Amino acid sequence: MYKVTFKFENGEPVEVFAGSGENLLEVARKANVAIDAPCSGNAACGKCKVKLTGGELDSKQTRHITDEEYAQGWRLSCVSKIVADVEVLVPDIASAYRSRMKVADLGSAEELQIFEKTKNDIASAGIAFQNDLETIEIMMEEPSLDNTMPDNERLTWAVEAACGVSNVKLSFAVLVKLSEILRKSSFRVQCVVSRDGERVEVLDVLPADEKAQICGLAVDIGTTTVSALIIDMANGGILAKASAGNGQIRYGADVINRIIEQQKDGGRKKLQDAIIKETLNPLIDAMCASAGIAPERVYRMCVAGNTTMNHLFVGVDADPVRMEPFIPTFFETDSICAQDLGIHIYPHARILMAPNIGSYVGGDITAGTLASTVWNSEEMSLFIDLGTNGELVFGNSEFMMSCACSAGPAFEGGDISCGMRATDGAIEACTIDKDTMEPTFKIVGDEGQKPVGICGSGIIDIISELFRCGIISPKGKFIREGERIRHDSYGMGSYVLAFKEDAASVKDIELTEVDIDNFIRAKGAIFSAIRVMLSSLDFDVSMIERVLVAGGIGSGINMRNAVNIGMFPDIELEKFTYIGNSSLSGAYAILYSKEAEAKVADVAHNMTYLELSNEPSYMDEFVASCFLPHTDATLFPTLEMK
Amino acid sequence: MYKVTFKFENGEPVEVFAGSGENLLEVARKANVAIDAPCSGNAACGKCKVKLTGGELDSKQTRHITDEEYAQGWRLSCVSKIVADVEVLVPDIASAYRSRMKVADLGSAEELQIFEKTKNDIASAGIAFQNDLETIEIMMEEPSLDNTMPDNERLTWAVEAACGVSNVKLSFAVLVKLSEILRKSSFRVQCVVSRDGERVEVLDVLPADEKAQICGLAVDIGTTTVSALIIDMANGGILAKASAGNGQIRYGADVINRIIEQQKDGGRKKLQDAIIKETLNPLIDAMCASAGIAPERVYRMCVAGNTTMNHLFVGVDADPVRMEPFIPTFFETDSICAQDLGIHIYPHARILMAPNIGSYVGGDITAGTLASTVWNSEEMSLFIDLGTNGELVFGNSEFMMSCACSAGPAFEGGDISCGMRATDGAIEACTIDKDTMEPTFKIVGDEGQKPVGICGSGIIDIISELFRCGIISPKGKFIREGERIRHDSYGMGSYVLAFKEDAASVKDIELTEVDIDNFIRAKGAIFSAIRVMLSSLDFDVSMIERVLVAGGIGSGINMRNAVNIGMFPDIELEKFTYIGNSSLSGAYAILYSKEAEAKVADVAHNMTYLELSNEPSYMDEFVASCFLPHTDATLFPTLEMK
Repeated sequence: MYKVTFKFENGEPVEVFAGSGENLLEVARKANVAIDAPCSGNAACGKCKVKLTGGELDSKQTRHITDEEYAQGWRLSCVSKIVADVEVLVPDIASAYRSRMKVADLGSAEELQIFEKTKNDIASAGIAFQNDLETIEIMMEEPSLDNTMPDNERLTWAVEAACGVSNVKLSFAVLVKLSEILRKSSFRVQCVVSRDGERVEVLDVLPADEKAQICGLAVDIGTTTVSALIIDMANGGILAKASAGNGQIRYGADVINRIIEQQKDGGRKKLQDAIIKETLNPLIDAMCASAGIAPERVYRMCVAGNTTMNHLFVGVDADPVRMEPFIPTFFETDSICAQDLGIHIYPHARILMAPNIGSYVGGDITAGTLASTVWNSEEMSLFIDLGTNGELVFGNSEFMMSCACSAGPAFEGGDISCGMRATDGAIEACTIDKDTMEPTFKIVGDEGQKPVGICGSGIIDIISELFRCGIISPKGKFIREGERIRHDSYGMGSYVLAFKEDAASVKDIELTEVDIDNFIRAKGAIFSAIRVMLSSLDFDVSMIERVLVAGGIGSGINMRNAVNIGMFPDIELEKFTYIGNSSLSGAYAILYSKEAEAKVADVAHNMTYLELSNEPSYMDEFVASCFLPHTDATLFPTLEMK
Repeated sequence: MYKVTFKFENGEPVEVFAGSGENLLEVARKANVAIDAPCSGNAACGKCKVKLTGGELDSKQTRHITDEEYAQGWRLSCVSKIVADVEVLVPDIASAYRSRMKVADLGSAEELQIFEKTKNDIASAGIAFQNDLETIEIMMEEPSLDNTMPDNERLTWAVEAACGVSNVKLSFAVLVKLSEILRKSSFRVQCVVSRDGERVEVLDVLPADEKAQICGLAVDIGTTTVSALIIDMANGGILAKASAGNGQIRYGADVINRIIEQQKDGGRKKLQDAIIKETLNPLIDAMCASAGIAPERVYRMCVAGNTTMNHLFVGVDADPVRMEPFIPTFFETDSICAQDLGIHIYPHARILMAPNIGSYVGGDITAGTLASTVWNSEEMSLFIDLGTNGELVFGNSEFMMSCACSAGPAFEGGDISCGMRATDGAIEACTIDKDTMEPTFKIVGDEGQKPVGICGSGIIDIISELFRCGIISPKGKFIREGERIRHDSYGMGSYVLAFKEDAASVKDIELTEVDIDNFIRAKGAIFSAIRVMLSSLDFDVSMIERVLVAGGIGSGINMRNAVNIGMFPDIELEKFTYIGNSSLSGAYAILYSKEAEAKVADVAHNMTYLELSNEPSYMDEFVASCFLPHTDATLFPTLEMK
């Protein structure tokens, strides 16, 4: 066995032992050291670069490492074998998802406003925000030698009397603490109950004078980012919010790589631990701590995620999801409580799962569709969720069709060298002077905030502006020279938004040709999916009456620029609305409202699913869309190139 | 911190660190080193003797340690303080409950016969041995691109069709494994289901060609001994049986000491761990291994224990059980599944608890009463359970009264220097020649088995014979001299049953005056309880039509001798029947039969409870009973002293 030491820019080093010939990336994974590997360790993405600072590694040079870098000690961990004691530095950028994403979703006032508006829209669509959880006060006679009823019967009788029902069940959590609570509070208590017609379940019991807040947890499990809210189930108020990178990211950037990884020995457990133990539980603990809530006061959870995320979360084999005939274990399920999965909340909390409707259209989309209220309008609406999987729903109150495409994490700033979520420090909007090529940008956060990176909406602006200014070609290659335009030794061009002395970063903030290419493929996937879905219905873009755009791309999204780069169809801009993280808003609604829970099941049942991979035209459409704005310029008659 | 090393006669030493002034017994408990302390560390019982073999201890001499022993290094751990690094030897005898009790209950052919007879008696009383668990075969159409229903819906539909019901729920365990099982077995499976009218819950799913045994676990949690059966829920067959000392024994021999211990910081967790993690789970693992059963095939569990044991098992505060007005948290509960308590069986297995009816009459007695069939007969029956708590039920099909008394562990061989359970090597019957004072005894086990110790029935015989032969006085003191009669330096007498060269033991097998005294107090507690209960009903012993004796005392019990020593009332011997471990038989019945589950609730509701400590005459009766046979000899007119 050899000693492997991982050092970090910040934080204590980690030492582990590994056998001769073991793969460095695998060793890091086992040691719980986060090294991003969006390609899942196939030497394809070049993200898992570490620097050899002592000892030895058997590691070949790849196209991702220049001669100079190799001489400095940079190695790709996925192609490095342990052959001796070794010490490596894991730079922050190699664990970017993990270190950079610990930020609140709904982070800006604008996003909170959007959330509130979505909530109002759902209510206006006739969904009552009410649920079956409530707190009731119970007073009991104190026991005596003449009144020796055991505690659980005493409480059961009192709750039956208070609720006027005859079917009361105490949960295990109540049984365990009942004796102490009753005696501490002189037999005056509050009960947290779930009431379903004649059946009442007592979930918890608290002293009468304690603040008895009933909390709920809504989670959007994205392939790249996990966002969560803790809410007050009595009034829907947000008590805490947070987001983090999905810890599974080190097992691959997309669902296919994750599924391949979970097929390996122990893989299901590993992927489940990555989302629950590494991502969700710390997130929950942090939210509870920030809001001063005991985690066991969170009595219900709603999860919205794509079909694969849902399966990996539950610990269910996801392989059939990707293999013909594409049969998931579940679309809907009501079989799960928090304790089954080891989630740090009330152990018997019901876990609601927004229903999946197909292998690649999951609960994130049904929840998002619920939030979009497409189902409640006669207008022909296009709902677009810009996630790692891009998903579309088209329809109205009469019919809905959905499809999914693989866009990659670019919209959330993933796979972009200086990409980040739309939070403090993110460049969310940008213009470029055509003559001087100097940028002017808007940054999320307080005045004086220096740029940290670029979020999705910023990337759209930058690409659109670079294209408009003739700085890049329709293929996304740099075709002008200037102070802010650089080429590395391989000839890869980049545009510097902010030199490091003007940035809150250890390096220049730039957008490279590789970034642009990644983003063009992401936007191409979306645009071609829109085209194929509409034509399968014999519709064309002119028939779209409104477009609802969702995702972590940021509230700063400039729809004009998104059209300019060929991401969205060239229709009237006033038809576009950004609705924020609709998956999270939908999860919130399902958690908080019984009617929303029923409605999302309806929505799921009424939605048809179009499998794009079965559409012969999709690949051609995709290739044609991987240009600025498109190989068929007539699709963008209003393109602004001034 | 000082290093504390525990050495053993057999097994690896244990090293831990402890602070200056820490109590050695507490240090042992924390280190999970079993040292018996029936008095719970009050220097009262002298059982926690260890030998100092290195280093230093601050430990005073007590009456339990002779000068000679003290010079040899013997110390009571409960009065020893850590003051330096120290090394002690923990002799086997100091962890006797733990090391000696890992033996099967129902260990002899006689006891198995008794169990079978009890089972038949229950059936004859009209209880059908049927439950709601069954295996059904399900065949599904395989999915295709034209038939893309997810797995859980596919199974739900198929079960609905097979059972003719519309309310089918899949458990979490099914959800998690469904995908693999369906594909492994070409969509032909067996389902383990629980059927309750129109509701069917699928607990498990197995490939069609796998042996799908539905197992159940019946456990008698005694204060001293835990006995368990794993059965086939389809036919009631016993698949495995085992018993072990209750790991809580090191926190006190009786329920009061255990309750005091659980009141301390972290005590509830400690006591619960002692029964579940240290006692039950290893027992279950061993039984499953011996029967070749996967623990997750055990789909239900029934526990019979006294009220305190039940509370400590569930992890519920037991203090109110012993404090006026004596209010337990529960008599009955249906709120618990295996996962809640961390029991090594099917995680969602329902845990049935035989109902308690009072603070000191618990599920062991309601289960035992069910097994005794007292409730089904017009005959006035006295049911006696000889456990650490002695419990009595008197009545018939019209009424039943119960009471409890603290007998201590003597009936099970506890608190007896050479005591043991009625298993291989136990002296279960004995006669003594009045002239030569030579014993003749019967040993449990195969021919040629050498004696290991003495079980309860053997002790009865020996005391009765020693008394009949005039070797001991009515107070249990030795009054004759002989080769087999010895006195130690304190003058304490003992009778040697077998010298060590004739025994399978490292020391002579003897019965001491302390043992006899312990046993006399145990039998006195029982007899006085019988007297007080009967007189509270204006009954006398002549009105008893049958006596059913239960407990771990052993099938070899000689009722004549039990009467001779004043343990049982002097009535016709043919009225007595030994019915074995009725608590375990009752738990078996409740587990295996829905009707028995309902009946035991009935039995509990129909039983009144007499609190002996509220009866002014009890203490006088007890004192009067602590003689051989009794201070009032007229109560034993047929006493045989020939």
